[in-house]
Amino acid sequence: MELLLNRPRLLEIAKRDGIDAFVATSPENVTYASGYWALSQWIRRGPQVHVLLPIADLDAARVIAPTSLLDQLVDQQDVWVRNVSRYGFFHVDRADAPLSESDARLLDLCGQPDEKDALAALLKALQAAGLHKATLAVDELGLMPGHWEQLKRALPDAKLVPAMKLFREIRAVKTPTEIERLRRIATITEASVDAALKLAQPGITEIEMARAFHRTTVEGDGTPVLGCVGFGARTAMPNVYPSEARLQRGDVIRFDAGGRYRHYRADLARIAVLGEPSRKVQTYHKALHNGVIAAFEAIRPGVRASEVYAVAMQATRQSGIPHYARSHVGHGIGLDGYDMPDLTEANHQVIEEGMVMCVETPYYEFGWCGLQVENTVVVRKEGVELLHREDGALKVLA
Amino acid sequence: MELLLNRPRLLEIAKRDGIDAFVATSPENVTYASGYWALSQWIRRGPQVHVLLPIADLDAARVIAPTSLLDQLVDQQDVWVRNVSRYGFFHVDRADAPLSESDARLLDLCGQPDEKDALAALLKALQAAGLHKATLAVDELGLMPGHWEQLKRALPDAKLVPAMKLFREIRAVKTPTEIERLRRIATITEASVDAALKLAQPGITEIEMARAFHRTTVEGDGTPVLGCVGFGARTAMPNVYPSEARLQRGDVIRFDAGGRYRHYRADLARIAVLGEPSRKVQTYHKALHNGVIAAFEAIRPGVRASEVYAVAMQATRQSGIPHYARSHVGHGIGLDGYDMPDLTEANHQVIEEGMVMCVETPYYEFGWCGLQVENTVVVRKEGVELLHREDGALKVLA
Repeated sequence: MELLLNRPRLLEIAKRDGIDAFVATSPENVTYASGYWALSQWIRRGPQVHVLLPIADLDAARVIAPTSLLDQLVDQQDVWVRNVSRYGFFHVDRADAPLSESDARLLDLCGQPDEKDALAALLKALQAAGLHKATLAVDELGLMPGHWEQLKRALPDAKLVPAMKLFREIRAVKTPTEIERLRRIATITEASVDAALKLAQPGITEIEMARAFHRTTVEGDGTPVLGCVGFGARTAMPNVYPSEARLQRGDVIRFDAGGRYRHYRADLARIAVLGEPSRKVQTYHKALHNGVIAAFEAIRPGVRASEVYAVAMQATRQSGIPHYARSHVGHGIGLDGYDMPDLTEANHQVIEEGMVMCVETPYYEFGWCGLQVENTVVVRKEGVELLHREDGALKVLA
Repeated sequence: MELLLNRPRLLEIAKRDGIDAFVATSPENVTYASGYWALSQWIRRGPQVHVLLPIADLDAARVIAPTSLLDQLVDQQDVWVRNVSRYGFFHVDRADAPLSESDARLLDLCGQPDEKDALAALLKALQAAGLHKATLAVDELGLMPGHWEQLKRALPDAKLVPAMKLFREIRAVKTPTEIERLRRIATITEASVDAALKLAQPGITEIEMARAFHRTTVEGDGTPVLGCVGFGARTAMPNVYPSEARLQRGDVIRFDAGGRYRHYRADLARIAVLGEPSRKVQTYHKALHNGVIAAFEAIRPGVRASEVYAVAMQATRQSGIPHYARSHVGHGIGLDGYDMPDLTEANHQVIEEGMVMCVETPYYEFGWCGLQVENTVVVRKEGVELLHREDGALKVLA
């Protein structure tokens, strides 16, 4: 079974912080902890799914899910957690006919006692595992308002620790399965930009180009998420949203976009110019590109995020944009578009092998345009591995 | 300016409950309250955007947003709120060149004081509006853990009321702008099912059909969200997720799917059979269809949700599935896939003109298949208006 969860890192952080069990509650952490993608939880807030990870015995891990979402648990091949508690009424019928193995397991799960609600199920599971007096790291982000307080009251002898940041810390170093998903969506996204740019000609609208971008993502079995696409002076808007604005010869085209593949995110920027780029576009883009390439050369296990930031800022300033200012030059990426680590001046976190990062140098000049270089890389022993075919040099379109 | 927000209903509920101001915090309620779609808030949890709606003077409404998302505020034509507080560092440059009107407004907003964080900005705005001793209905769902308690401590003289349910109540009756968006995505989704079903032939996989479905949604400028597509016995799984399973002659094909258009959701079910449907499929589907049609005839302003439930259940049971069991036969739809009202036995809420509902009778029989009728309707004075071209009769494919 291929895992999203980085088990050694989970155990290491549990040991460091004296944690007896983790409880995942947000969609990202539930999927991460168990492999289980609980659809309703991902598309709206409210449905509660939990994963209990007892550190002393990970085989005793347990998923807590509404009855209506159990089918995904048995159908999905990636779920390694075998223990399940269900809650809530959901009626299904049964034919007088042989059942597939997964259907049989599903009906078996449906026949388990109804634990009423997610919190009641969690409390019962904690009691049963003898964890009601333990140190519990509970992901506070996915709980409904008031649930944290309810847990505290129901577990007077336990020590509750917020786990949102701890999960981010665990998720920062990716497993091979995660890297393959990130590679896939990085590739799909790059192909989507290329497909959209093929349509570049005077008169095409931003919306038409965005449509081609998303269509290619969907054809690669990705799900559209981020789709900032703009032309000309509009590209200075950091989140430029596709409009009816039409492309003109000489315009800068900026993409800052990326979908999901099996829940993993891409975030890619590409700049093209229809026709000959101005001297300023060439110079500035080159400087931003140099910033990212310099960061690539600096990134390796053991280097601090703040050092990478300094290198990228210096390279960009020295090679064409002396006034370049920026709060960060990149961020981790995974189930969340902003995973750890952030590449900022103040973040002295040490970069580790297996981290996956977007390295970026955006520049927004109102009254002129926006330029941006952004690529995703995996940190390997000797340096970075680029997850794209190209590294973000300026594209000049005929 | 076309509004998503139902102002009369907001004011009515505020008066009923003695509320002086509403504060929207979740993505749905922020967009609903102001028209403002704050991208980062919609694609991940964390970024905080608030909308303050002072009941005595809605023109004094205020958006609180991170500096990095201000561009969307000035670029989006639907934002009716004019007062803005910003927080957080985000650097932009400015060319020595004329600015567009929206760029000029954006730089103006960027020049306002940095309020540090969303909560500090909200507290300052409440003080400035003299609302620090008022009754405040605060949407608890979008706040970060601990923020509710911080607000309570910082506002000892105010009365804080959770607003999540109140916003759902306000949103239950749609404005004409909302109905047009719901119509658009209902139409896109129906066209997407039709496009996918055109590919039905022995050997096609669920994934290939789902791909065609999503591609059509994207081509209509919708965003894929829900895409349950299954064949044969797999259709009994309520959330059947597209797999490599191949279509065979005689298989039932079940779609339960729908995207977003400008943030508004669709949720549509269609059943087709490749070849001649069995007698049982015909009988059962007809019963489910009768259940939905009976509900359509029962729905009008003044009727209770529970009455509609009873009518649909009775019609389904009497016309072919005597053992039919189901917790609900529908739900509202809007910015959330599950808006009010739920059509359940226990919900005696009165249906009102302008509500938009998915009416559905799903049936899941393991070892056989799943069948489902689901359509979206608007409640009008005299009854329902269907937002689709067809009403969900069984499709027999040659």
